Amino acid sequence: MKSRAAVAFAAGQPLQIVEIDVEPPRKGEVLVKISHTGVCHTDAFTLSGDDPEGLFPCVLGHEGAGVVVEVGEGVTSVEPGDHVIPLYTAECGECLFCKSGKTNLCVAVRATQGKGVMPDGSTRFSYEGQPIYHYMGCSTFSEYTVVAEVSLAKINPEANHEQVCLLGCGVTTGIGAVHNTAKVQPGDSVAVFGLGGIGLAVVQGARQAKAGRIIAIDTNPSKFELARSMGATDCVNPKDHDKPIQQVIVEMTGWGVDHSFECIGNVNVMRAALECAHRGWGQSVIIGVAGAGQEISTRPFQLVTGRKWMGTAFGGVKGRTQLPGMVEDAMKGEIELAPFVTHTMGLEAINEAFDLMHEGKSIRSVVHY
Amino acid sequence: MKSRAAVAFAAGQPLQIVEIDVEPPRKGEVLVKISHTGVCHTDAFTLSGDDPEGLFPCVLGHEGAGVVVEVGEGVTSVEPGDHVIPLYTAECGECLFCKSGKTNLCVAVRATQGKGVMPDGSTRFSYEGQPIYHYMGCSTFSEYTVVAEVSLAKINPEANHEQVCLLGCGVTTGIGAVHNTAKVQPGDSVAVFGLGGIGLAVVQGARQAKAGRIIAIDTNPSKFELARSMGATDCVNPKDHDKPIQQVIVEMTGWGVDHSFECIGNVNVMRAALECAHRGWGQSVIIGVAGAGQEISTRPFQLVTGRKWMGTAFGGVKGRTQLPGMVEDAMKGEIELAPFVTHTMGLEAINEAFDLMHEGKSIRSVVHY
Repeated sequence: MKSRAAVAFAAGQPLQIVEIDVEPPRKGEVLVKISHTGVCHTDAFTLSGDDPEGLFPCVLGHEGAGVVVEVGEGVTSVEPGDHVIPLYTAECGECLFCKSGKTNLCVAVRATQGKGVMPDGSTRFSYEGQPIYHYMGCSTFSEYTVVAEVSLAKINPEANHEQVCLLGCGVTTGIGAVHNTAKVQPGDSVAVFGLGGIGLAVVQGARQAKAGRIIAIDTNPSKFELARSMGATDCVNPKDHDKPIQQVIVEMTGWGVDHSFECIGNVNVMRAALECAHRGWGQSVIIGVAGAGQEISTRPFQLVTGRKWMGTAFGGVKGRTQLPGMVEDAMKGEIELAPFVTHTMGLEAINEAFDLMHEGKSIRSVVHY
Repeated sequence: MKSRAAVAFAAGQPLQIVEIDVEPPRKGEVLVKISHTGVCHTDAFTLSGDDPEGLFPCVLGHEGAGVVVEVGEGVTSVEPGDHVIPLYTAECGECLFCKSGKTNLCVAVRATQGKGVMPDGSTRFSYEGQPIYHYMGCSTFSEYTVVAEVSLAKINPEANHEQVCLLGCGVTTGIGAVHNTAKVQPGDSVAVFGLGGIGLAVVQGARQAKAGRIIAIDTNPSKFELARSMGATDCVNPKDHDKPIQQVIVEMTGWGVDHSFECIGNVNVMRAALECAHRGWGQSVIIGVAGAGQEISTRPFQLVTGRKWMGTAFGGVKGRTQLPGMVEDAMKGEIELAPFVTHTMGLEAINEAFDLMHEGKSIRSVVHY
């Protein structure tokens, strides 16, 4: 079938809106009509060419919501008409990782997903007869996309897709990092580095967890009002201080914060986030994705004196098991999604979403088909 | 009073056996007659001059056992005749850290201890009228030493001091790291980097915890027999492999080990230890003390894919609360201390203990007065 899509033909070039060919779903696969998709920094990272795993031409997009159109052989967990969110972190329930109970990092489709193909090694997308790669197992920048059954969370059909599509990545990652990875407890102190979609979601998650102090940090003070409305108790602009930001935070808190979160992808900020964690028990969670080949560093003394350095992918959330409940939380207002959607646009204007993001003007742009 | 002591008059020079003057204990202090002391890599590190906090002249030694001789004003928890182990990690029970229940990193005497003085800012040691610094709050290389009350664990008077002195540092650090920091569970896999006293204690701790696989790693294969006798299931010499050791361990185990421990103080090994931890949940504990200014590094992807990097000091053990029980465990044979004591000598031969350690010939030399 034909599908409108924004295709990344080459690194560093704007997406092109074209009509691609989409093959029917094969065994264990599902054809989904995407209604809305967010545009995330990770899409921009891959499009920039800095992502060493980036493959072109491809259909980017991994933060979407839609409706099942057709299922392939053997698919039992969803049927046409079901409302779904595609998952870049699958949940097969069968692999070593799913069964461990310790992680959401399912490996069922990991190897092929990283190569831009479906589990059988081929693509379902083509343009003028040439194959086009999939992206993160989702490819939500095509109106019709094919994803693995294990990569779909079935959600409440009454959910607002323009909002809940953001649970496909950024918001879930931030909120999940608070609850699943850091396990923030009532009264704990939290520092959030970077107030994009993920950082603001961390602020919301920390408020849900009843954190006692939520310190929001960004070099762009225009983010502070929204951060405060979501629960930040203190807002700090590192540019207002001569000292390293970790020292500022330690001085504000006495011994540092119980939990810090890096939501940017900057390895220097990752170090600062670790080093502002509380002596004895503070922990720092890396959420941001750093550029290829970049490394984090610190003195080992930081760890020997009780700090823990960790990371999270998709906030530790098991998508098929947990995401439906997060959609319910959003419908009840326990997760506020509306403030994240600062811009909406049709597919033909998707490149503007990237511009707005690079200019720091948007939290999230949501594209509708 | 006079006391025989091995004094470090300057960095990089052998210790000198001299008779020093020891003042009586002041308020909150205790005079202890040391009967035995181990010689640890940390003593050698400070003596080398590489320790940025090293102060000279000083009385080194922090792994001892002895008997209380005299108590200062206000001391209530010990009395003359009590058998004790001095603690370089105090436990006051009153500070933010002690009360947190999350860490053993008491701050009661931390600031002055790091400056080589007693909590009132002065030293109790002098030689020919010149003050001599204390070390790690213990200074067990003097037959008579003065320590803070909060830095003494009272132990069973029937314990064998020649063995339980090792619970003052290395053995407790290794065993504690397994139980308190990593919290190894039955069936877990463990990798131990470096088979000195601490590494072998980690092996014992892992066996106590019923770890399923205990991989012992050292470039000196003469350590392997002892490691096996203490519970190691696999012994690996990195020199036998062309690949990086982390890759060797990952290939041996499928996805890496549940827990790894760095027991050397080498920042490159710390990286290897992290990178051989299991995707999704593996954790790596830094125990070794790195040289001044050295830093650890890795790609943040290692953490984002579920590994945790942490450290431990004194194995997370609260000395006054927990050490007496570990002494009991040693008396019951549940902690095997005898194999650690490969050499014993009188105080006059203490420099030989450093030579044996540097040559890799000893696990622990124990000095008796």
